[in-house]
Order: sequence, then structure tokens, then C-alpha cells
Amino acid sequence: MSARMGEPEKEALFTAAVAIEVLHTATLIHDDVVDKAESRRGRPTTVARYGREIAVATGDHLFAESFHGLAEIGDPRLVRAFAEAAMGLAAGELEQFRSARKPLEVEAYLEHIRMKTAGLFKAACVAGGTLGSLSIKQIDALATYGQALGLAFQMSDDVMDFVGKPGLMGKGVGTDLAEGTVTLPVIFALNDGDAAIIRRTLETPNPPLDLLEAGIEAVLATDAIKKTEDWALGEVEAATEGLSLLPDGAERTILEAIASEVVGRDA
Amino acid sequence: MSARMGEPEKEALFTAAVAIEVLHTATLIHDDVVDKAESRRGRPTTVARYGREIAVATGDHLFAESFHGLAEIGDPRLVRAFAEAAMGLAAGELEQFRSARKPLEVEAYLEHIRMKTAGLFKAACVAGGTLGSLSIKQIDALATYGQALGLAFQMSDDVMDFVGKPGLMGKGVGTDLAEGTVTLPVIFALNDGDAAIIRRTLETPNPPLDLLEAGIEAVLATDAIKKTEDWALGEVEAATEGLSLLPDGAERTILEAIASEVVGRDA
Repeated sequence: MSARMGEPEKEALFTAAVAIEVLHTATLIHDDVVDKAESRRGRPTTVARYGREIAVATGDHLFAESFHGLAEIGDPRLVRAFAEAAMGLAAGELEQFRSARKPLEVEAYLEHIRMKTAGLFKAACVAGGTLGSLSIKQIDALATYGQALGLAFQMSDDVMDFVGKPGLMGKGVGTDLAEGTVTLPVIFALNDGDAAIIRRTLETPNPPLDLLEAGIEAVLATDAIKKTEDWALGEVEAATEGLSLLPDGAERTILEAIASEVVGRDA
Repeated sequence: MSARMGEPEKEALFTAAVAIEVLHTATLIHDDVVDKAESRRGRPTTVARYGREIAVATGDHLFAESFHGLAEIGDPRLVRAFAEAAMGLAAGELEQFRSARKPLEVEAYLEHIRMKTAGLFKAACVAGGTLGSLSIKQIDALATYGQALGLAFQMSDDVMDFVGKPGLMGKGVGTDLAEGTVTLPVIFALNDGDAAIIRRTLETPNPPLDLLEAGIEAVLATDAIKKTEDWALGEVEAATEGLSLLPDGAERTILEAIASEVVGRDA
């Protein structure tokens, strides 16, 4: 959509779109190696199905394929956008691991998800705008859109860890909490609610079910979910605001629709 | 050296040289995750010191940094050369894993090490020649040099698994054999020597010391080491042959010296 607001070369656009998907897949495969995850999107992970050796090398291969595609396009701005996103993803993963099971300030949380989630959304939008030969100001607006959309997406994901429908999401409720991932609802609930029980849930590796349920209840007893959704809606607003710089038309309408659907989604 | 046979821009050359080292380091860190290796170059590996999470993410970050550096240089030919090398490395790792503990034809072995080892040597030489603005023919000669040097290097490494000095290499004798990696001396010895005992050593995960020693002895009882070194010397010849297309001078002399030192080295 970002590219089609300008005049992209079709082949290059296709290659870049594939490169984003391939890069994303590479990071998911490696994430699953790190987390020893059994399933993703309701199916066995690469590491569960083929083992650590194959999973690490497959992720590396996909990573390289992604940049190989970008080399074909021949625009170093795309390589830079993707490399920055990939560095951010890895740095976000490192930061999240380092801070696992420990209380976190909102600002540090935002920095983590900016790197870990929003960077790839941003890179996709910037790559599109670049391939569409849009103006620098327009590409900046798309960068803002992508980043804010990514933040809203992650916050909405955080909420689903407390109120999600397991069948649709492909992961159970309370997964983040059990893994010690400090999400935005948890940060709010630590300030407003029964901090002792939430902290104990976070700090306990593989918490027993009754502790995990008590932790979830303690978060739901506060207005942490509503506060998180409000923050996410603020990001959605920030995302769509700048789009006024872009040509009016079906593509812009679709980008706006995507942003408006992110909060309160089921899966 | 490849770049300095032409007229490279200093900053770009430095960035590309760093990018090769960083890419190589990324692959070593991931290899050590896959192999659960305890030490490399006589020091603890990243995975042994900091755990799987940090090691996978650190490798990914370095990988991305490497391409970020190349994006700064802005020449898509470099991105392509590096991405091809990185794809080959991962594919070689996958192939080697798939064929572990099974007899291998020489041709399949050559294909593995072309991808797993020689690709990075080749990419370094091609990147240098490109940055030095050498002619296509000269860059091709450097590609041939790099690839043949890489093959000779790997074959020499294979030999050291049987006759190496552990203190200098940072890994013990018989490591490849114990891990079921089918190297060139093993392929020759399977044809010429006591195939039953070698095959049993290869096929046994974590072979007991007496079996491993019997396997090593069985290889050393043939002329597999000499045959491997002869093949490596043939590669050295192939490596240096094409260098005649390049300007005579210190750089070419050094490239020739490097090739001539690869076989029969201690570490």
C-alpha cells in the first residue's frame, strides 16, 4: 500500500515485499529456538519439528535470502532500512531477555517494543515509500505510521495475553506473564493493583497454574487493560495523523482501516 | 590486499573489511549454538558463557550489522556478494548436518566446503576487487583465488584433525571424526583402508576414546593425509595461477604467500 501511493516498479516491489516476509520468518524461527517453543500459529515450530541445528541454519539462510533480494533491487536505502530493522529486532530480543521477570518503566518498555516489533512495520512502510518514489516528507509520514502501528499492534497483543481467545491466537492466555515478559498491562497493574502477587508470578519460572491465574486476576482487577488499549488508541491516532500528507485514495483508506482494526482484535 | 591492487576509497574498504569479520563472527557464534560448543580459540564460546538466548540474538545482531555497514558503502554488488556467501554458509551447514555420519563422495564434499568455507574467502576477495575498481576479469581472478584458497584452507584444517597440535588449534585431535563430520582424509581412507572401523567411529555418537583412537589410526594407516595435502596443493596452484592477471607488486606477492602457507600449517 505504501508503494502504491507512488509509482513503484512492480518487480522490485514484489521482491521487497517477499524480503520483509522472509526476514520476519527468519526472526520467528530463531525466536522459537531461543524460547524452545513447541508451536506457532497452531503448528509445530521449525525447532520442534527439525531440531536446533536445522532451525538455526534455516533462519540464517532466510536472513541472507532477504538481503540477497534487496541486492537485486539495487537501492542501498532499502538495505539500510532492513538492516536497521534487523539490528533492532535482535537488540530488542536481547533487552527483553535481560529485563525478563523484572519490573520495567513504561519508557523502557516502549523502547523494547519499538525495536522488537515496530521496527519491521516501519521498515516495510519506508521500503514501500522509497520504491514508490514518494517525497522524503511522505516517506517520513509512512515511517511514523509504521512505527505507531507496530506499537499499537504490540500493545493489543499484550492485552490479548489477558483476554485473548486461545483458539484464534495460537497461544494460550497468560503466556507472556508465565515467561516473565513485562508487558504494558503488567506495568500499569504493578502500579495500581496487587503488586506482590503480580511480581511473584513474574519472578517464578514456569509458575504453577494457581499462581498464574492469581496473577492474571490481579491484573484484570485493575484498569490496566483499559489503560493499555487507550495508549494503543493514541498510537493509532498518531499513525493515521500523518497520512494526510499522502495522496487520497484506496491505499490511504486501507492503511487507515488497518490501523483502526489493530486495537480490540481477536487474533 | 585485493582492494589495494586497485584504488579503493579508504573508508569503504575499512567498512567492508569489518563487515566480513562481523559476518564471520556471527556464523561462528551460531555454529557454536548448534554444536553446543564449549570453547573456541581456547576461550569459552558465547553460548557457553551467556546462554542460548544471548548467543542467537547476538549472532543475528552481528549479521544485521554486517549488512548495515554494506548499506553505508552503497554498492549493491557488495550486498549481493555477502548475501550469497551467507546463504552458502547456511546451506553448507544444513548439508553437512544432513550428511553427518554417512559416507560421502568427493564431489559432494567439495560442494559442502565450497559453500561452508570457501564462499566467505571468495566474497572477501570479490568485495576487495570491486572496491578497488578492478576489471571484471581481474575480479573473476580474485574470486577464483579466494575460492581455491578457501578449499585448500578447509582441506588443511581436515588434515589437522588427524595430525594437529591441540594447544595451537584450540580444539583437540579427532574432533571432526567424533562429531561424524566426513572430511576429505576420511573419504580417502574409507576407500583405501579399514573402512569397517572408520565407519563405526563415524556412526557412533560420542565414540569412546579407544574407538576414536582406532578410527584415527585407521585413517593414518592409509595415505589419506598425503592425498588430501596433494589435493590442497592443487587448489593452491589454482589459486595463484589466475593472479597473473593482477598488477605485480607487494599485494600480489602477499596473496601468493598466504596461499603457499595454507597447507602444512600448524594452526
